[in-house]
Amino acid sequence: MLPKADVAPGSAGQETVDPVLTPPQFDDVLKAVQRIAGYCHRTPVLSCSQIDTQLGARLFFKCENFQKTGAFKFRGACNTVMSLADQEIARGVVTHSSGNHAAALCHAAALRGARATVVMPDNANAVKKAAVRGYGGDIVECAPNTLDRERVMAQLVQQHQYVPVVPYDDARVIAGQGTAALEFLEQIPDLDCLITPVGGGGLLSGTVLSAAHQRPGIEILGAEPAAADDSYQSLHSGRRCPLTQTPQTLADGLRTSIGELTFPIIQAGVRDILLAREEGIVQAMRLIWERMKIVIEPSSAVALAALIENPAALAARRIGIILSGGNVDLDHLPWTSSTD
Amino acid sequence: MLPKADVAPGSAGQETVDPVLTPPQFDDVLKAVQRIAGYCHRTPVLSCSQIDTQLGARLFFKCENFQKTGAFKFRGACNTVMSLADQEIARGVVTHSSGNHAAALCHAAALRGARATVVMPDNANAVKKAAVRGYGGDIVECAPNTLDRERVMAQLVQQHQYVPVVPYDDARVIAGQGTAALEFLEQIPDLDCLITPVGGGGLLSGTVLSAAHQRPGIEILGAEPAAADDSYQSLHSGRRCPLTQTPQTLADGLRTSIGELTFPIIQAGVRDILLAREEGIVQAMRLIWERMKIVIEPSSAVALAALIENPAALAARRIGIILSGGNVDLDHLPWTSSTD
Repeated sequence: MLPKADVAPGSAGQETVDPVLTPPQFDDVLKAVQRIAGYCHRTPVLSCSQIDTQLGARLFFKCENFQKTGAFKFRGACNTVMSLADQEIARGVVTHSSGNHAAALCHAAALRGARATVVMPDNANAVKKAAVRGYGGDIVECAPNTLDRERVMAQLVQQHQYVPVVPYDDARVIAGQGTAALEFLEQIPDLDCLITPVGGGGLLSGTVLSAAHQRPGIEILGAEPAAADDSYQSLHSGRRCPLTQTPQTLADGLRTSIGELTFPIIQAGVRDILLAREEGIVQAMRLIWERMKIVIEPSSAVALAALIENPAALAARRIGIILSGGNVDLDHLPWTSSTD
Repeated sequence: MLPKADVAPGSAGQETVDPVLTPPQFDDVLKAVQRIAGYCHRTPVLSCSQIDTQLGARLFFKCENFQKTGAFKFRGACNTVMSLADQEIARGVVTHSSGNHAAALCHAAALRGARATVVMPDNANAVKKAAVRGYGGDIVECAPNTLDRERVMAQLVQQHQYVPVVPYDDARVIAGQGTAALEFLEQIPDLDCLITPVGGGGLLSGTVLSAAHQRPGIEILGAEPAAADDSYQSLHSGRRCPLTQTPQTLADGLRTSIGELTFPIIQAGVRDILLAREEGIVQAMRLIWERMKIVIEPSSAVALAALIENPAALAARRIGIILSGGNVDLDHLPWTSSTD
């Protein structure tokens, strides 16, 4: 465990601000709460006595799988879209995420009658393409590599003046994601610990902003697939260690590397990153489906899996888990894929 | 549509009462509410704007899949077990249901430190056996036919003086199931219509007791697989028409015939039974999993499927659906079974 530092992300008293790259503050989360009200669900918190008994702790699950577009990502996308001026949003938005952020951004843009374009690799799967189209987004294909994706996106921004909205290294997105933990602590005020999955770090850094303010002293943990442990490596080495190749993890929402904007916030406010094996992720996912009767995606199961593999973190405490999303391909579930 | 009658089940002013076979009244539901408090979950009500838009109605889903033991059945089993005298429950309880009622009864009995025995056909599947054992129940096997099941159960009752608790033709069970609709109407008071699946009719008759009292004039509908349409036939012919063989429906909770005690209540208070095709049940189940991110069993999907196949019943109204349970074998989902 790393020592827990006070959280002081960003530079206080800054005057001109880049809304994208200026480190967000707790106040930005409060503004996000106002902006997304009426668009985002106040998602319920569930608990499960069978899982509690099995683990010897008291767990509370914040169900962002029930969020609009099926993931917490809508909070950040919605906050960003709603913070744009009329003349900005009128130009349309663009992103290059092919997962939950893309669907969230398309839906948020549609709420303002605006166009959203998603740059997707030409080999992206049909379910993801259908989700983007289902939320009214346009797809522009690129070659399946980062370089081409960024080239195509830059071209679109230049050509159409689309407003780029990236998935996590954006202060507006982080502040939006922070509303989940704020709500959670309103619903269950006396948590000892909060744990969220970490990919790019938008949810985890937003959680730091909210929780450190709302409940000082609360322990904040991240959970990451062992197969994509760049946040763990970064936190323990003290410098960002991005993944050098696409990691082989079922938790497809967590294949990205921790961000430049999110890392310092996480470094300041997160006690540790717990790791989960692939097998443990599948087992935790199935446990939640079977016992809690809710549909979560593999990335959502990483926090419970990491707790099960690190039982010292449980120790009869009241632990809040943010279940990040519920978008799965029901035709290909991890426990049946081996027999398909 | 049948004309809607006033609901007056049971005989008022009756003096000596058989707690099992005397038709239950609304007052019995109120007593059940007291008895099950602290043991049963007050399950949440969810809605889904995408499904509403698709169907052109406003649907509210009472999530009994989140109930203890994964189904509404726990309400009736719990009410029955909690109403037994100490010297009765000390003898243990017995049932011959192999599904959700069996698991519910085992859990309820365990809460009073009592033994529960379940008579199950020797070819019952491993998942159902594991559920009964998981809730602490004992299994006694019988030949896979009704006659032998009843013979074995009668033998156990005689030999050990176990108290028999049948799944629906029991006033205490019906009153317990009625607490679901009562809660629902407290949560969403202005429903125009309530619809529940119907197998033996415990949930539907309990719903009649509660809804007709709590919101007079509300339309109450049943939903049944077309492949097991005995309630439909019974209601339309005016006499009980039990199934003559095991029906071929995925909705395994609805393979039983409407009961002797439940039918008159249903006849008095239910406007109509809507039917659902097997294909429609699978589609509705998948729609709920995908859009609402919750795990429901096929029997739970029958109400939505029946509404989709009978769009006149929708007509831009506020409709409450009781999702009866969420116990499915995740290794054998209906939309993947064809490719297994």
